[in-house]
Amino acid sequence: MGFTSAALHCGIKAKTGALDLTVIAAERPVAAAGLFTTNLAQAAPVLLSKKHLQRTAGMTRAIVINSGCANACTGSQGLADAETMTREVAAALGCNVEDVLVASTGVIGVNLPMGRVAPGIRTAISQLARGRGSDMARAIMTTDPFPKEDAVRVETAAGTFAIGGTAKGSGMIEPNMATMIGLLTTDAQVPPALLRRALEESARDTFNAITVDGECSTNDTLFALASGASGVVIDDETYPALLEGLLTVSRKLAVDIVRGGEGATKVIRVTAQDARTSDDARRVARTIANSPLVKTAIHGGDPNWGRLIAVAGRAGVEFELSRAAVTIGSIVLFKDGRPHDEAAPEAAAYLKNDEIAVLVDLGAGTASSTVWTCDLSAEYVRINAEYRT
Amino acid sequence: MGFTSAALHCGIKAKTGALDLTVIAAERPVAAAGLFTTNLAQAAPVLLSKKHLQRTAGMTRAIVINSGCANACTGSQGLADAETMTREVAAALGCNVEDVLVASTGVIGVNLPMGRVAPGIRTAISQLARGRGSDMARAIMTTDPFPKEDAVRVETAAGTFAIGGTAKGSGMIEPNMATMIGLLTTDAQVPPALLRRALEESARDTFNAITVDGECSTNDTLFALASGASGVVIDDETYPALLEGLLTVSRKLAVDIVRGGEGATKVIRVTAQDARTSDDARRVARTIANSPLVKTAIHGGDPNWGRLIAVAGRAGVEFELSRAAVTIGSIVLFKDGRPHDEAAPEAAAYLKNDEIAVLVDLGAGTASSTVWTCDLSAEYVRINAEYRT
Repeated sequence: MGFTSAALHCGIKAKTGALDLTVIAAERPVAAAGLFTTNLAQAAPVLLSKKHLQRTAGMTRAIVINSGCANACTGSQGLADAETMTREVAAALGCNVEDVLVASTGVIGVNLPMGRVAPGIRTAISQLARGRGSDMARAIMTTDPFPKEDAVRVETAAGTFAIGGTAKGSGMIEPNMATMIGLLTTDAQVPPALLRRALEESARDTFNAITVDGECSTNDTLFALASGASGVVIDDETYPALLEGLLTVSRKLAVDIVRGGEGATKVIRVTAQDARTSDDARRVARTIANSPLVKTAIHGGDPNWGRLIAVAGRAGVEFELSRAAVTIGSIVLFKDGRPHDEAAPEAAAYLKNDEIAVLVDLGAGTASSTVWTCDLSAEYVRINAEYRT
Repeated sequence: MGFTSAALHCGIKAKTGALDLTVIAAERPVAAAGLFTTNLAQAAPVLLSKKHLQRTAGMTRAIVINSGCANACTGSQGLADAETMTREVAAALGCNVEDVLVASTGVIGVNLPMGRVAPGIRTAISQLARGRGSDMARAIMTTDPFPKEDAVRVETAAGTFAIGGTAKGSGMIEPNMATMIGLLTTDAQVPPALLRRALEESARDTFNAITVDGECSTNDTLFALASGASGVVIDDETYPALLEGLLTVSRKLAVDIVRGGEGATKVIRVTAQDARTSDDARRVARTIANSPLVKTAIHGGDPNWGRLIAVAGRAGVEFELSRAAVTIGSIVLFKDGRPHDEAAPEAAAYLKNDEIAVLVDLGAGTASSTVWTCDLSAEYVRINAEYRT
């Protein structure tokens, strides 16, 4: 796809051999776009990558990503460290420092061990090669139980191109522009402005429609790179094919982040429909998806439609109880103001599945919205009570 | 204090002998005020009590409360059942049905077993007596680990009066007008309008400043009754003493609800200070108090100030990272954009306490706000995954 990459253990993570540093590079600056966290406490790499993308008007030669340390809330030292990371890459590749982007993920409030990171970057660049995407997917993991990657080939009248992607979760996930770390690559030739538009549009209903714990992180970053290596030029005519391809890969990765959410045992697809506006639908779906009572009930296999109604009722959205309905899977449990508890055993059996769909009909309009979430287990508590100990 | 009460097991709860029905009565209609949930899916007893308070302009003879069944999402049958409960009380006491208020708490979406409730009410009224407040406190419990009651005597120039109160939690707690069920009584003589004002003012920083799981229920109800039995008349001059007394009792009960939160092992006092506005301060304190990552970190004894900053950053409030500070107990862990991790061991030792104070300084103004919450434990998950099974 016109990219090379490398991943290694430089010593940020304590565990010997655990990949914690990765670099992806193109042979020359290529079109790049980035979406970043809306958290007001933005990490140093987020601030720096935004600046670099602005300075180059969306042209990037390489991205360096580390896991194990978020380089967030690290003050001026943190900014200096992020700059050093990009400078090491630029020096080794022989490009401008602005042509390099950076992302970090891991513990907040700890400085990077630059004595290990800087030599690690130099080694990584000496090892750049094609076909190392799987190592990259592992090198960006923190508490993720499995690596996340996907790729599709897109056929258009102008020719065939490829889209690949990788992402990591897995706690502090309610992205509000992008997920913690995500990277999408394509060998299509896409002008930077169009790449940014495609990234925004594809993230809206994928990376921005998931939640694990309602926590928007300090480091959320989603990058897209377009190398042009396929020779396929994206214009108004081929844009829908690019968008469709990005949506396919992004949806797979976003749902995988939920599947790998901390302590998750089930993926839950929450749909709010027949809302007055799209915003209303989105707010209800999101409120349900973040409700600890809904998430624990589904974890316990309890078809507790009352909690779904109660949570919809506190979402601050117009809604008529007498016209509302709750469906779990395809089983109607509440309709026209009346419970259908005779269907509860069937719904309880359905909840034994790993993939659950719940639907709340607000009976107030025609808009709908879907958000993916996971169940809340005792394992989430264990992971986050012991994260730093 | 001019009230009699009775509590018994009528058979709503499955466990033999578990108190599930209680009535409190005055000898004649007395000043009454109520605050109710802002959830749009309001339970039948909430709708009926609001109507009765409006019709009588705040004069009430008795309140009947049941636990074990919330009578929420129960349609027209639910409304008829709530009416029957008030009618049974009115018939036995010989008053108007509008003079009776009703509240229910427990499972949502299940109809009341009226064949047991109605005779239960008649028996309760035949047993009305003074000094049974402790039974009442137990009769309104659901998953609460302990009963909650408090009383104070208030001395004023006009004489001495008493204020008592009881409340229950313990999950689905982020009241947005009042807690699930709370009852305050006084033998002061208070005009209904003044009683309502005092109830609203005292609830703002007590019952409305707590959260267990961010879930505003369908049944939240807080009542106040003023019998006048002490002969002390509350007017503009004695109002501050009434308010102070209500605040004392309400704060004790509200913090007890947090202490008895589902799965709670610690009470956490979250203060946001130096915010631009009171709303900003309140929003940051509330967002932190509902953060699963903060609540699990404190559960695990981890002085993870990074999560406090990250959560403050996603609260959507103006805030300057370089001027922000985080204090746990009296230990400063982050200040002027710089971590003080040398203090982490001391903070970890402090977190072994049952009562924890955390403070986030936003460095943006002078407003502050406090919210009480509890930690998030695996026990919360267990309770709510198995609630109906």
